[in-house]
Amino acid sequence: MLGKQKIEESIIEAVKKVKTTNPMAGSITNAVTMNFVANAQLAVGGSAAMVYLPDEGEFLANAGGAMYINVGTLLPIYEETLERTGKVLHEKNKSWVLDPVAIGIGSFRTKILKRFKDFKPTIIRGNASEIIALAGLWKLDGGTSTSQVRGVDSTNLVDDAKTAAIELAKWTGGAVVASGEEDLVTDGNTVVYSKGGSDLMEKITGAGCSLGGVMAVYSAVTTPFIAALTGTQIYNLAGKRAKKRAEGPGSFQVAFLDELYKATSQDIANNYFEIKEDVK
Amino acid sequence: MLGKQKIEESIIEAVKKVKTTNPMAGSITNAVTMNFVANAQLAVGGSAAMVYLPDEGEFLANAGGAMYINVGTLLPIYEETLERTGKVLHEKNKSWVLDPVAIGIGSFRTKILKRFKDFKPTIIRGNASEIIALAGLWKLDGGTSTSQVRGVDSTNLVDDAKTAAIELAKWTGGAVVASGEEDLVTDGNTVVYSKGGSDLMEKITGAGCSLGGVMAVYSAVTTPFIAALTGTQIYNLAGKRAKKRAEGPGSFQVAFLDELYKATSQDIANNYFEIKEDVK
Amino acid sequence: MLGKQKIEESIIEAVKKVKTTNPMAGSITNAVTMNFVANAQLAVGGSAAMVYLPDEGEFLANAGGAMYINVGTLLPIYEETLERTGKVLHEKNKSWVLDPVAIGIGSFRTKILKRFKDFKPTIIRGNASEIIALAGLWKLDGGTSTSQVRGVDSTNLVDDAKTAAIELAKWTGGAVVASGEEDLVTDGNTVVYSKGGSDLMEKITGAGCSLGGVMAVYSAVTTPFIAALTGTQIYNLAGKRAKKRAEGPGSFQVAFLDELYKATSQDIANNYFEIKEDVK
Repeated sequence: MLGKQKIEESIIEAVKKVKTTNPMAGSITNAVTMNFVANAQLAVGGSAAMVYLPDEGEFLANAGGAMYINVGTLLPIYEETLERTGKVLHEKNKSWVLDPVAIGIGSFRTKILKRFKDFKPTIIRGNASEIIALAGLWKLDGGTSTSQVRGVDSTNLVDDAKTAAIELAKWTGGAVVASGEEDLVTDGNTVVYSKGGSDLMEKITGAGCSLGGVMAVYSAVTTPFIAALTGTQIYNLAGKRAKKRAEGPGSFQVAFLDELYKATSQDIANNYFEIKEDVK
Repeated sequence: MLGKQKIEESIIEAVKKVKTTNPMAGSITNAVTMNFVANAQLAVGGSAAMVYLPDEGEFLANAGGAMYINVGTLLPIYEETLERTGKVLHEKNKSWVLDPVAIGIGSFRTKILKRFKDFKPTIIRGNASEIIALAGLWKLDGGTSTSQVRGVDSTNLVDDAKTAAIELAKWTGGAVVASGEEDLVTDGNTVVYSKGGSDLMEKITGAGCSLGGVMAVYSAVTTPFIAALTGTQIYNLAGKRAKKRAEGPGSFQVAFLDELYKATSQDIANNYFEIKEDVK
Repeated sequence: MLGKQKIEESIIEAVKKVKTTNPMAGSITNAVTMNFVANAQLAVGGSAAMVYLPDEGEFLANAGGAMYINVGTLLPIYEETLERTGKVLHEKNKSWVLDPVAIGIGSFRTKILKRFKDFKPTIIRGNASEIIALAGLWKLDGGTSTSQVRGVDSTNLVDDAKTAAIELAKWTGGAVVASGEEDLVTDGNTVVYSKGGSDLMEKITGAGCSLGGVMAVYSAVTTPFIAALTGTQIYNLAGKRAKKRAEGPGSFQVAFLDELYKATSQDIANNYFEIKEDVK
């Protein structure tokens, strides 16, 4: 098990490395929030590129430091794009983040999410309901056989997803994040809870998606667990700070991007988190 | 005919009900403004989800409280998606809002908009030129046989669209809104004019689209006429207030989302509107 | 060769003409930044419309004052849409701006960019690496045979692209812009450098794309060279001013749209630029 001090040092290192090396994390992601994803990735020091086509997905999988895949607004071409891109990511052992948004809506989404079990995403990020539903789809412990997801909102609490998150992480060998009022981050061995954020994060679209994109940026320079936790920490910090400057969701979104940009590595590491459990 | 006081009470009730029940209004909408649509829907207290695929459109039509369909940036798959989704909405008697944006551009847009005559949208929202052109396409009184729409801009005044709006509302049994400097809202029996807004609303993209999305949220909890009017009222109020805080279209857009979020039910009901006509 | 005073007068005239005539510049552009492109076009006084389908592309090519084509997030339908739209633009001698973003990623992007050589874009705008790669693809002097583009970022300096820019402009008979810390604008005869902007422009997505969209708006009312330079000048001015009001990329983006809207024709003409070279 990693000690708290070692984790904080690793966070600091990851944040600095992204700012100095500007890693590219390409995305195949939903159209509603792709602008916000790209802007968040740039704000933390990464580089962004979004594509739809199969050979372009393969190109980014090969050329980028990591990748972000979000199944939000699927198009017909994605059947081929996601299959071919996922294969490259898996075969080349590339870091990638999966956001199983709106799992349970539509047959193609279900098919592709099932398929991703073989491609073992390095980081899986979703709300509690999505994490539970994905574990169920992959027939892992802690999952449920039917999705309780309503569109893109969670109807479960983060702790309901703990077993599912741990089992998913054990399967992939990577990290899993269940986002909520507190955020749970696990690598299957250690369970960490990160706090902060703001109620306004639920009043803007793309907080979760862009968090996944930012985790992909960090995963280009560090381990899945540290990448997942660093992304979670900077989001909780920036959310808390942005809330103080905001009059509503419009000004919150603006302030949030500013705070992502301004946050120092030390502040990100110092945002409150606790190691609640050593699984094994 | 509804009296002014009864209308105001219904507006107050609709606003409160949305904030307490957080209804989901899924969208099939144009890519340019889908982020703004989702953020506006969240700001007033609703929930948002956007899709492209046929079975996902059907899913949202069945699962959501209402739906928003905007024919802005059509894709090939929309031929099937809009047909199947429209059918479910009509057969299940679900509330849905149609934005016939850019009517007249392209043959597929014309075909699908003709087809929507059978599916009877609960609320139709457009600028004056779009309302006139849609009535024309549906061979109703007040319409013109050829579109005078130039891209997405109106070349007509709201009052030019009055007959078209009334006839459309009579056909659908729902409500119709012609947006302009003043906004005309009718259910085919009563014609109401709502005032406010700002000249900066024409300097940002998506003011009209997001208004349609917000009307869809309200239509999940009230009648088409009250939903259409409540959406129009909160837009006129938030536009007026945002203008005071804005230096230009960038800060206007931010302030506008804030004001959508902050507006109280009482303020929304109290925004100036007048019942100018009792049609029958 | 145009003198500096004549150029400034032409810029002033172009800015005023856009504000009074509100020209429509339709776009086929990438999904990540299309909202920002539209908002920038509106902020300077133009009108915007984005489409995906072949007959809608043709419609905009015929109906609009100019067009903007960005090959950012290609979709399968674009094969037909870009071919048919490009043909109309060329045959009808319409002004259009090409942004060869991410040239080198994927085989379809390469194919369509090769094809555009025949359609002779009125203005080509890219970063230095993209301009060099496009000249290479078109087998013109100053180009390289293999792309050194990494995703959407430039790895070259603007002056490295000078020969490529001049040769491209000579081929098209229009103007070429290589964006960078300084921006190079040429019509193949005169080379002008425009200064200003902000380091934060690299920390938001869409600065380059929206500049292309704004140039398209100006190209509806003036020559390619003046349109390219006017767009570059207003971007450098607004970037410099927005930087002063910004705490980070979020508030920068907001302030930037405000400043595009507020900039006077005189201020735009007065932004620093120098005529460094008379090519012939």
